[in-house]
Amino acid sequence: MNINENYKNLNESYLFSTIAKKVSEFSSKNTDTEIIKLGIGDVTLPLCPAVIEALHNAVEEMSRKETFKGYGPEQGYDFLKTSILNYYKIFDISLDLNEIFISDGAKSDLGNILDLFDKNNTCLVPDPVYPVYVDTNIMAGRKIIFIDANEENNFLPLPDYSVKADLIYICSPNNPTGAVYNREQLKKWIDYAISNNAIILFDSAYESFISEPELPRSIYEIEGAKNCAIEFCSFSKTAGFTGTRCGYTIVPLSLNINGSSINKMWLRRQTTKFNGVPYIVQKAAAAVFTPEGQKQIKENLNYYKQNAKVISETLGKLNIKYTGGKNSPYIWLKCPNNMNSWDFFDLLLTKAGVVGTPGSGFGKNGEGWFRLTSFNTYEKTTEAMDRFYNLFK
Amino acid sequence: MNINENYKNLNESYLFSTIAKKVSEFSSKNTDTEIIKLGIGDVTLPLCPAVIEALHNAVEEMSRKETFKGYGPEQGYDFLKTSILNYYKIFDISLDLNEIFISDGAKSDLGNILDLFDKNNTCLVPDPVYPVYVDTNIMAGRKIIFIDANEENNFLPLPDYSVKADLIYICSPNNPTGAVYNREQLKKWIDYAISNNAIILFDSAYESFISEPELPRSIYEIEGAKNCAIEFCSFSKTAGFTGTRCGYTIVPLSLNINGSSINKMWLRRQTTKFNGVPYIVQKAAAAVFTPEGQKQIKENLNYYKQNAKVISETLGKLNIKYTGGKNSPYIWLKCPNNMNSWDFFDLLLTKAGVVGTPGSGFGKNGEGWFRLTSFNTYEKTTEAMDRFYNLFK
Repeated sequence: MNINENYKNLNESYLFSTIAKKVSEFSSKNTDTEIIKLGIGDVTLPLCPAVIEALHNAVEEMSRKETFKGYGPEQGYDFLKTSILNYYKIFDISLDLNEIFISDGAKSDLGNILDLFDKNNTCLVPDPVYPVYVDTNIMAGRKIIFIDANEENNFLPLPDYSVKADLIYICSPNNPTGAVYNREQLKKWIDYAISNNAIILFDSAYESFISEPELPRSIYEIEGAKNCAIEFCSFSKTAGFTGTRCGYTIVPLSLNINGSSINKMWLRRQTTKFNGVPYIVQKAAAAVFTPEGQKQIKENLNYYKQNAKVISETLGKLNIKYTGGKNSPYIWLKCPNNMNSWDFFDLLLTKAGVVGTPGSGFGKNGEGWFRLTSFNTYEKTTEAMDRFYNLFK
Repeated sequence: MNINENYKNLNESYLFSTIAKKVSEFSSKNTDTEIIKLGIGDVTLPLCPAVIEALHNAVEEMSRKETFKGYGPEQGYDFLKTSILNYYKIFDISLDLNEIFISDGAKSDLGNILDLFDKNNTCLVPDPVYPVYVDTNIMAGRKIIFIDANEENNFLPLPDYSVKADLIYICSPNNPTGAVYNREQLKKWIDYAISNNAIILFDSAYESFISEPELPRSIYEIEGAKNCAIEFCSFSKTAGFTGTRCGYTIVPLSLNINGSSINKMWLRRQTTKFNGVPYIVQKAAAAVFTPEGQKQIKENLNYYKQNAKVISETLGKLNIKYTGGKNSPYIWLKCPNNMNSWDFFDLLLTKAGVVGTPGSGFGKNGEGWFRLTSFNTYEKTTEAMDRFYNLFK
C-alpha cells in the first residue's frame, strides 16, 4: 500500500490564518476601534424571496409520496438545464441540454474534471491565482507552468506560443485581480489552445458582475471556444448560493481530444462518482432564472456593485492604481508608496481598522498589491473607505 | 494533450437499459397486465415530518440576513457531526469530531477517496458487486482482483492470505446479496488488512436495516478497525435522502500509511475539491437524529422490512434458497430449477408480470441468482409475491 505521494508536495497556505491572527491581536489591544473587514470572500445578503419560495415548495413536494423525489439524473434535472440553456440564448449562445451538467459548485467540478486528463499533461496557470487550480494539479502530479499577470499586461496575460501547455486556466472576471478579458484577448487564447490541442478550463464564477456590455459573459461567445473550452459557472456569487451549493459546467459535444469525446467522459465520471445535486437545491437554482428571480438577484448584485464603486472611486480620488471593481466584486489595488503587501496590510489595519487581503498571498506577482472585496454592507464599506481616504489623502 | 486512457477500459453496463427495454416490450403487448417492479433500488416513502420541519426552518434562516449561512466548513458543521458522534456512542464507539466528514453521499466519497492512494495499489473486490467499486478503480488504472462471493460461502467471502491487496472493498449489509458479516468474520478481514498494510473501504450504506442485535452496525465495533478501515455511511436508504443527498465518512485519526495520516490527506482533498453539503441539507440530516426523527425513520424502515419479510416468507414456503431480507432491503434468491438469471427474469416478467434484477448483471457469481428489493408498496409487494407463489408452488 502506498499513498498518493504527490500530496506531500502540497504547501499549506497560512494566508487567512495569519490575517485572522493579526486582526485578533490588534483588536484585543484596541477594543475601541471597530474593525471593518473588506477581505470577505463570501456573500452576505440572504437568498432572494423567489429562491426561498421555491425551496419551501420543493420541501413540501418531498413531504408527500406522490411528489417525493428520490435519485435524480446525476447530470441534473432537465427543468434546470432548460433554464440555463435559455439563459445562454441571451448571449446568442446555443447549447444542447446534454452539454449542461449541474454541479454542487465550480470548485468541485474544477477539481474533478482533472480525472479525465492524463497526469503527464502540462498546466498553464496565471500568477496571481485562485490556489485551487494549483493544488488540484499538484495532487495529480502534473507539471505546472506559471504565466505572469502583472501591471505591464493589466493582469491579463496573453499566450506565448513558445510555451507548450495542455490545460489552460482562465478566470475572467478574475479572482483576485478583478481583471476581465475582452473578446479579442479571449480569441487569442482560443487560437492558442486549438493550435496546441489544448483545453481551456474557463472559470466563469463571476460573470454576473460584468457591467460593460461589450465584455463577454461566456467564452462560448467567441468563435472556436466549443472546440477547446469547458466553462465552470456558479450560483454562489450570482445568487448567494455559497452555503446552498449549486453550479453548472458546460462541456461542449464538439470538444474532442484525439477522437475521445470529453463530454462523454465527463458524463461517465459524474454518473460513476456523483449522485447529483439535491432536488430542492435544483428547484431553488431554477427560481433564479424566473423574471422575479432575475429581478431580485440583480438588486443584490447592484448592492455589491455599489460597494465596489465606493471602493473604486476612493482609490480614483487618491490616484491609486487598481483593476477590477466595475465588472467584478474584487478590487485589486497597488499598495501606495511602493509598500509591500503585508506592510500595507499592517498599516491599513493599525491606522484605519480596515482588513483586506495581501496580494502576495495569491502568488509572486501579487507582491505589492492588495485585494478588497465588495461583500460587506454599504454602510461599513463607506465608513472603511472614508478611513482609507483620510489615511492616504 | 492526452486524455486519461483508462476510461477506454470501462465497460458500459446495459443491465438496467436491457431490463427497461424488455419491460416496455412486454407491457406494450400485454396492456391488461399490471407490472409490479421489485427491482427498484430507490426509496419510495417521502421524507419524514421531522426532516421536513427542519428543512423549512433552515430555509427561513437562509431568508434573513441575520441567520443566513454562506460558505460552511467543507467537512461539515459541528452540529451534524456531534449528532453522528452521539449516534456512534449507541454502538459503544467513541469518535473524535475530526474523524467525521459530512458528504453529499457515499457514492461520491467512495469514488473520491481513491485520490489519496497510489495508482499502483491493488484492489480486492467481491463478485457479485456494486459496479462503482470496479469502475472507479478502472478509471485510475488500478489492478483489480475479484474474490468469489457464492453459495458455498453464503456470499460472505473470507480473506485468502495468499492474495495480496492494498484496498479491500467490503459492503455489509451487501448490495446485491443482502448478506451481512458477523463480528468474527469482520475481525478476520481486519487482521488480514493489518498484516497487509492495507485499507478496508467499508460501505455501510445499509446498516440501519440490520435487525439482529448481534450483527455489527459499524466496522469500528471490531478491534483494530480504527487502524485500517474507512467507513462510508449514507442517509439515502436510512432516511430517504436519495434525492436530498447527504452522507458521512469516518476516517480515523489513527489510520496511517507509512507515516502519512489518511485523515489529514482526506481533509486536504475535501477542502481543495469540495465546498461542503448545503446548510439546509445538513440541518435536515441532523433532524434524523432527534427523538422524533429516529422514531419516524424507524417507522419507514419497518415498512420496508415488512416488505422484505413478505418476500422472504414466500421464498421460504417455496423452499427457494436466498440471502438477505432480514437485515437488508435486498433479497438475493437462487433461480428455481437451475434457471439462469435472464431466463428467470423473462419467466417472472411474462408469467407473473413481476420485474426484478438478474444477478448476472452484478458479476459472474451472480449467474443463476436474482435480486428483489423491498422498496415498493406493501400492497404491491404482497400482490407480486402472491403471483410469484402461484407460479412456483
